[in-house]
Amino acid sequence: VSLSQPQYQLVFYSLVVAGLALFAQFVKTWVSAGEVSSRYRPALYASMCICGVAFLSYVFLALKFDSGYQLSGGQYVPTAESVNSYLPRYMDWSVTVPLLMVEALAVSTLTGGRARQTRLVAMSAAFLMIFTGYLGAGVIGNGTSSSAMLLWGIISTVFFALLYVVLLGVLRASHEGMSPVAYLGYRNAVFLLLLVWVWYPIAYGIHNWTSGGTATTIIQVGFCAADIAAKAGFGAMIHKVAKVRTADDM
Amino acid sequence: VSLSQPQYQLVFYSLVVAGLALFAQFVKTWVSAGEVSSRYRPALYASMCICGVAFLSYVFLALKFDSGYQLSGGQYVPTAESVNSYLPRYMDWSVTVPLLMVEALAVSTLTGGRARQTRLVAMSAAFLMIFTGYLGAGVIGNGTSSSAMLLWGIISTVFFALLYVVLLGVLRASHEGMSPVAYLGYRNAVFLLLLVWVWYPIAYGIHNWTSGGTATTIIQVGFCAADIAAKAGFGAMIHKVAKVRTADDM
Ligand SMILES: CC1=C(/C=C/C(C)=C/C=C/C(C)=C/C=O)C(C)(C)CCC1
Ligand SMILES: CC1=C(/C=C/C(C)=C/C=C/C(C)=C/C=O)C(C)(C)CCC1
Repeated sequence: VSLSQPQYQLVFYSLVVAGLALFAQFVKTWVSAGEVSSRYRPALYASMCICGVAFLSYVFLALKFDSGYQLSGGQYVPTAESVNSYLPRYMDWSVTVPLLMVEALAVSTLTGGRARQTRLVAMSAAFLMIFTGYLGAGVIGNGTSSSAMLLWGIISTVFFALLYVVLLGVLRASHEGMSPVAYLGYRNAVFLLLLVWVWYPIAYGIHNWTSGGTATTIIQVGFCAADIAAKAGFGAMIHKVAKVRTADDM
Repeated sequence: VSLSQPQYQLVFYSLVVAGLALFAQFVKTWVSAGEVSSRYRPALYASMCICGVAFLSYVFLALKFDSGYQLSGGQYVPTAESVNSYLPRYMDWSVTVPLLMVEALAVSTLTGGRARQTRLVAMSAAFLMIFTGYLGAGVIGNGTSSSAMLLWGIISTVFFALLYVVLLGVLRASHEGMSPVAYLGYRNAVFLLLLVWVWYPIAYGIHNWTSGGTATTIIQVGFCAADIAAKAGFGAMIHKVAKVRTADDM
């Protein structure tokens, strides 16, 4: 679909701002990793990987978006290339959402076998949620079949629901073993993540049932805002939990 | 061969996800290298080189794949360039497989002259395995001669078998000198590597004796999955062995 000039400018702005914010969070996490004891350090490593991967992905998205539209008659008209200007997000998510699970679990109170098992379940469910969503959005029926999108969207939502159950379970299990300050921070971080996640299936639905420049703009700007919150914002909150727990452990 | 749209999307997805996963492992290994004592640090350096090289190679493969196919009549039709969209893998492997040997040996219990000699043999065999395979797949007979592929495939397989012997020998030799936990991790890592390796000659065979969009898709997606396991997965497992051995040495 074609975009008006304001719509195009808004989307391009969001893509670049999100990429730069993720880069900033990457740098911040890297240089301050020493604040946290080695026990919680894996959460920061995961966050660095997430922000680094997402930054690369935004560089690619912004370049694709830039070259995928041509200004003609006052409208930005997509070239053949740009039908795929939003599918690369799924490739980013396939790596980053499983890593978000590593990050979320690394500051919990789970240890040993229980921690490993929960992590495996959460990472697998996260990957399968994204991969099945990708099958619906871009593979089966070329991403233009409403019924395929609905079917695979529902399958994806099963994993989505499973992740809510797992993360809320981890939160409950961590209540006892953490100081109130640490728990409050952890609860807020997990709630933020689960709240922001709601946007992704909504965007998938908007993409499926409507089209047009306004819908495209809302979806793209929304993804950028959600990614900043779920990757950089969540990362900052988990960092703080790791710092509080480091101090509590002394 | 032409690819259908779903096949094209799946291959492109795998290439980008593999590249991003390798990048994430590169970042993770870099920032967490301090967890390991200097004795085992070379394993992590090798892993960083492997993941870094492979990431670059995937960027190149993904860009080639993107520009090497043109959508026409609902099919992705290869341009003249794209016959070579899989040969660059051999160039990546020529560097990374010898480095995988460095990584695998650096956490073993071999020391001194024995370690150097084993490393030399393993690196040479690894390089020759890939180089002779490349001669069959891309050089002799322009990579279209079945008999050349068979001949050089067999020569390559001799080095392949030699590597199994060497690595299993190193594993046996390391049993005595390691703690049970370290050995178990080491055994799992080497087994994973040797298991995943089986895929590469199979893909070479598929490429030689069949053709068509489905075969191309299976080969490409399979290579991506195998590379993630043999480079990022193996790297994570060796990292853990290095950490356990560091603690054991205290
Ligand atoms: C439920 C559902 C989906 C959920 C996606 C989610 C929850 C993505 C989260 C991505 C994040 C958090 C990325 C940033 O780090 C899909 C795949 C759109 C397909 C439709 C059904
Ligand atoms: C036996 C054999 C082969 C083996 C290749 C292997 C084992 C490649 C491993 C690559 C890895 C592990 C890359 C990732 O790091 C070739 C060359 C296909 C040619 C046919 C015979």
